[in-house]
Amino acid sequence: MKITKELLTLNQDIAGQEIGIPVYYVNCGKDDAPTVYIQSAVHAAEMQGSAVIFQLLTFLPKLSINTNFILVPNCNPFGRTQRAGEYLQGRFDATTGNNWNRFYHYDESLVTKFLNSLEGSESLYDKANENKIVSDFRLALSKSIEDLTKGEWGINTAQYLNHKLQSLAVKADLVIDLHTGPSSTRHIYSPDFLVEHAKRFNIENIISIPCKFAGALDEASFIPWRLLQQGLCAIGVEFKYGVKAFTVELGSQENICLTQAYEDMKGILNFLNTEGLVTGNPKIDANDITVTALKNYKTLFSKYAGMVEYLAKAGDKVEKGQTIARVLNSLEFDNDRGLLEIKSPSSGIVILHYPSAAVQVGTQLYKIATDA
Amino acid sequence: MKITKELLTLNQDIAGQEIGIPVYYVNCGKDDAPTVYIQSAVHAAEMQGSAVIFQLLTFLPKLSINTNFILVPNCNPFGRTQRAGEYLQGRFDATTGNNWNRFYHYDESLVTKFLNSLEGSESLYDKANENKIVSDFRLALSKSIEDLTKGEWGINTAQYLNHKLQSLAVKADLVIDLHTGPSSTRHIYSPDFLVEHAKRFNIENIISIPCKFAGALDEASFIPWRLLQQGLCAIGVEFKYGVKAFTVELGSQENICLTQAYEDMKGILNFLNTEGLVTGNPKIDANDITVTALKNYKTLFSKYAGMVEYLAKAGDKVEKGQTIARVLNSLEFDNDRGLLEIKSPSSGIVILHYPSAAVQVGTQLYKIATDA
Amino acid sequence: MKITKELLTLNQDIAGQEIGIPVYYVNCGKDDAPTVYIQSAVHAAEMQGSAVIFQLLTFLPKLSINTNFILVPNCNPFGRTQRAGEYLQGRFDATTGNNWNRFYHYDESLVTKFLNSLEGSESLYDKANENKIVSDFRLALSKSIEDLTKGEWGINTAQYLNHKLQSLAVKADLVIDLHTGPSSTRHIYSPDFLVEHAKRFNIENIISIPCKFAGALDEASFIPWRLLQQGLCAIGVEFKYGVKAFTVELGSQENICLTQAYEDMKGILNFLNTEGLVTGNPKIDANDITVTALKNYKTLFSKYAGMVEYLAKAGDKVEKGQTIARVLNSLEFDNDRGLLEIKSPSSGIVILHYPSAAVQVGTQLYKIATDA
Amino acid sequence: MKITKELLTLNQDIAGQEIGIPVYYVNCGKDDAPTVYIQSAVHAAEMQGSAVIFQLLTFLPKLSINTNFILVPNCNPFGRTQRAGEYLQGRFDATTGNNWNRFYHYDESLVTKFLNSLEGSESLYDKANENKIVSDFRLALSKSIEDLTKGEWGINTAQYLNHKLQSLAVKADLVIDLHTGPSSTRHIYSPDFLVEHAKRFNIENIISIPCKFAGALDEASFIPWRLLQQGLCAIGVEFKYGVKAFTVELGSQENICLTQAYEDMKGILNFLNTEGLVTGNPKIDANDITVTALKNYKTLFSKYAGMVEYLAKAGDKVEKGQTIARVLNSLEFDNDRGLLEIKSPSSGIVILHYPSAAVQVGTQLYKIATDA
Repeated sequence: MKITKELLTLNQDIAGQEIGIPVYYVNCGKDDAPTVYIQSAVHAAEMQGSAVIFQLLTFLPKLSINTNFILVPNCNPFGRTQRAGEYLQGRFDATTGNNWNRFYHYDESLVTKFLNSLEGSESLYDKANENKIVSDFRLALSKSIEDLTKGEWGINTAQYLNHKLQSLAVKADLVIDLHTGPSSTRHIYSPDFLVEHAKRFNIENIISIPCKFAGALDEASFIPWRLLQQGLCAIGVEFKYGVKAFTVELGSQENICLTQAYEDMKGILNFLNTEGLVTGNPKIDANDITVTALKNYKTLFSKYAGMVEYLAKAGDKVEKGQTIARVLNSLEFDNDRGLLEIKSPSSGIVILHYPSAAVQVGTQLYKIATDA
Repeated sequence: MKITKELLTLNQDIAGQEIGIPVYYVNCGKDDAPTVYIQSAVHAAEMQGSAVIFQLLTFLPKLSINTNFILVPNCNPFGRTQRAGEYLQGRFDATTGNNWNRFYHYDESLVTKFLNSLEGSESLYDKANENKIVSDFRLALSKSIEDLTKGEWGINTAQYLNHKLQSLAVKADLVIDLHTGPSSTRHIYSPDFLVEHAKRFNIENIISIPCKFAGALDEASFIPWRLLQQGLCAIGVEFKYGVKAFTVELGSQENICLTQAYEDMKGILNFLNTEGLVTGNPKIDANDITVTALKNYKTLFSKYAGMVEYLAKAGDKVEKGQTIARVLNSLEFDNDRGLLEIKSPSSGIVILHYPSAAVQVGTQLYKIATDA
Repeated sequence: MKITKELLTLNQDIAGQEIGIPVYYVNCGKDDAPTVYIQSAVHAAEMQGSAVIFQLLTFLPKLSINTNFILVPNCNPFGRTQRAGEYLQGRFDATTGNNWNRFYHYDESLVTKFLNSLEGSESLYDKANENKIVSDFRLALSKSIEDLTKGEWGINTAQYLNHKLQSLAVKADLVIDLHTGPSSTRHIYSPDFLVEHAKRFNIENIISIPCKFAGALDEASFIPWRLLQQGLCAIGVEFKYGVKAFTVELGSQENICLTQAYEDMKGILNFLNTEGLVTGNPKIDANDITVTALKNYKTLFSKYAGMVEYLAKAGDKVEKGQTIARVLNSLEFDNDRGLLEIKSPSSGIVILHYPSAAVQVGTQLYKIATDA
Repeated sequence: MKITKELLTLNQDIAGQEIGIPVYYVNCGKDDAPTVYIQSAVHAAEMQGSAVIFQLLTFLPKLSINTNFILVPNCNPFGRTQRAGEYLQGRFDATTGNNWNRFYHYDESLVTKFLNSLEGSESLYDKANENKIVSDFRLALSKSIEDLTKGEWGINTAQYLNHKLQSLAVKADLVIDLHTGPSSTRHIYSPDFLVEHAKRFNIENIISIPCKFAGALDEASFIPWRLLQQGLCAIGVEFKYGVKAFTVELGSQENICLTQAYEDMKGILNFLNTEGLVTGNPKIDANDITVTALKNYKTLFSKYAGMVEYLAKAGDKVEKGQTIARVLNSLEFDNDRGLLEIKSPSSGIVILHYPSAAVQVGTQLYKIATDA
């Protein structure tokens, strides 16, 4: 096993100084080994994943590995300097409002064109041909990403950041994007057809997402391969390969804990172990895991402005009609409108709540994995 | 003519104090008169339109009018208190990055349903029936807007703001949304089929947009009616009515000028005059007007970070290859990389440029109405 | 007992809408009763005090009171709308950086002038005269505050806010300014000569401050009276009266908890009880209390930038040399500079730490009440 | 003449990447030549000085110089990445509100101690000794700056930045700190005893400041030397040496113009020429120059909130009582309170006004160099 690193230049500040991201390459020594890509902190305040990659880099030398790793522990040089009072405002471009996690490249027509180019090929039905299709399609994906920066009109900052990261991630067979929520319990976004795989991360809550692009890296990574597979299946070609991709939410933002990061790492290693990519990893105590379809993962937006006490905490099970928050209205402290109750519209598990007591109309108060 | 006003409550601050928007109603005294809706400053730093509405309210009593007005001079109580240093950060929700001008309600299926409900109706081909269709469809649109706030899960802050404004605008036959650019010349977004009408605003640059929803009020206002018209036409029903809607960009943000506002008002009155809605308005000196299709209205994103001198100003005509900006890189002041040139990728008219010399990779440097 | 409220107009937004603060007056029915002034949330994100005032207003009717109250539960209409990402940026004016809690009015020369005006007065040495001196001096203080807004050049926004609040607080014999820290344990700033009194709030940590003005409301409230007392003492006049003023820090910002607010209220009522101002208040379990002089209350500024794990939490006792934090440097994850340790320069009690893991050089990491 | 540069590391971002400032050294080849220190953009949005240093570095090789230069064209790596919407929020630390230009080190007791250490020295009255006193005092100043970072509790971010810059500036005989105002005409802050010298910069407006420290670099640079001179004079020692220091305000923020920067450079070179430091510089057309004492340089704070039209522009001469601004109040557009007039409280020259039409109570509307 060999660990190398490079500083990938990605940005300059207005003085002209180049700013980059550290990229760690862990090489297992086997040329045809699969590749695992893990990044953290594309939303800059979501730092726990950086601690997890630290633990991983420290621990990997103790394991036997059958895979190469590309590890990017702090992948957003734009967001990580953007302060908002005492916190980081790292979720979106402070100039445009563009979410740093919504501008990955995805072009459905690329899949169609690639499928068209295959049709009529004599070797298409030859199983031995799968590897060639995989490498050709990956090349096509890589090229379409590269082409993004070639136009003379340029691309916006979020596209530029996402493009740079995606040009690394496109090389991988497994893509893990480490995030956190605001005040949040651990949860994971998994493609619906990979939910059984996702359970091996040992994270209590799985949000199962359909094969539909909404801008994120996990979607940009797995969807083209899934569509390719479905397209080939439709013409009778068996094609097993797919990129697996997950967004893993490691608790709350603005916070790191190395002890917990070690536990988080164990879950990732357990997943890798079941995929045959590492051996010798530490045992885990299996959690009970709940799976919720994305359509049942609901956001409760506040109908009031005021100061909110969150009675239901991240991870709590709540019932329909249960009072989950109370809102103080300081103009009505002398009557019973001074304290309003907010009730859960459904039973389910509280995944996260807003990180501040100061709430306006339309603030995202809670996200709840509701019972279908 | 009668002018009344109300303070429409729209928000509370976290102390519980209600915050609203002033709405002025100008009534011409005729029951069946059409309605003109004009709002300003949904992007809170874009204030020139407020001055235009001030001039309009001052000037209207001197005219003869055949229309009612709903005028909302400062329509965003969320944005107008959000400071960012010495400026207003009023373009998007500071918490979520949601653009205040992208969450208007539009539901294409509503048009289809409405068309389906009409089919088979005996009176459909009766020309006298157009007024009834108009009022029924307006009712359906109004109801779908009202329904937005009824769900128990709520809606986000931008949706809430847009919903409240749209519930006023839906009543109107003509909708004008007053904005500004960053460092910008005057320009107007017009539905492509209304370009000849749009010229009567006497604004030099028209961006002609297709019938495609991207979240803004003008689109949300005219598209359903246009689709209705097309749908009826497809089944052989002649239907003339449509809502006209425009986004008017009145120069640069963070600035008001009452003298210029008077000129801006004259353009609006000229438009209203040609529509038969006002008479007695002041003469204008007709400008030369350029029309550019949206697909030819291009954004030049910076490929460098640095301190930028904008050589081409808003309103300038530029040639392909012309140096339109220079970028200082303070790390290279001792060599010829200290000052880089940025060239225009196309000939055209500079509509706007970024309002600050401090630029990062991917910053929107210029928007240029290019020659096709 | 009678509770009345008013909405004191204090601000307008740029649309012109007036914005105010709710002020509650609790009248005990005795004309000569002393007055207690309590305000909360001058730093807008420090909201727990608002919950305490809610509990107080709910609970006071159950008590017997010998004092009037002026209660201002949410006293900063400028700060409470200023968002910074998902948090409130309510500590300082977003335009100027002026701390909302540093522009209270204090003019030492006023005391001198007042003392000079008294000298030679025959009745000065008459003990019965104390009440007259008190009311004359209060009048002089009130007038000097009122005069602030009379100048034609105006005053800045923070001065304006502070002036409005101080014009209420100057009427009081006891002033309590409710704040919180970032990630903080409860603590209280007490004038050094009132430390024994301050213990009756039952808050574990007292910071004892000298008679020196640094801009805050507590200082502006007690210092003039203390200097008056000392000045009179110097000429042989016994003068017992003084305004008592405290800044009470109720845990962490961005958070409210009504259950804890009830406990916080009990401490305040206990204090009021020992001052003879309320009876019938609930019992408290007395805490061990540590007093630290301001000069021994030290700030540890970070010497590194990076992602910080706070090992010592608010309220913890630490030893000199103890590792209290660890800093991750993501460029050095492959060597032993990837995780740096920060040690406490002194033994003492951790009062608060920075609320985010994202730290730059010079960030205020910890505040520690050190052993002298 | 030899130009060298270094990248002085000053900061890290939270990923651990080092960020620095470019420092250019221009050496004239004479060992005992004086030193000129020029920095720009300590308030990061004030960028015109960076363009001036660019022009200076380009132009210096054409001149004959008798001085060394230390040039820091972009001296604030903390501020220059801090965005606030489309602008830079570079005036103060986004976390603390600390103004980046108010934490330079100044310790009056150092002068007293140094003077005490000289007393009784036999050679004190020997004129030839002046050079030794200068070098000893500069050493003492340097050491006191260096000592700032040695404490185990650290210093805050603004102190840290200021300390690093001051450790360069302390070496210089002439210190020029390049700033801009918000919407501003050119002006210069000069020590009152150097006003005749300051005129040679050829900037129309001079603000004459007393020998009183308020945190800025110019004050921190010249005051110790002035006090030393005065202290020596008091004991009958003639001492001619002093550091000259100026803050030069080059128009408006958020903007650079290279053509104007060339003119700005000519003024600086003219000053240097009169000091005997350069020859061969381009001719200037001498401006009429007005000198205003700091106490007559007044700020007009707004008494209203609203949308402001600035009728008086930077550089305009205004009369007492002249309407210099108008405020729109969108709640009163139907009556004569819809447009309020703001009058100048004094005659004088408008030096700058606020850069946005959006104003709250207490906003710094105008700064006016009033007639005494």
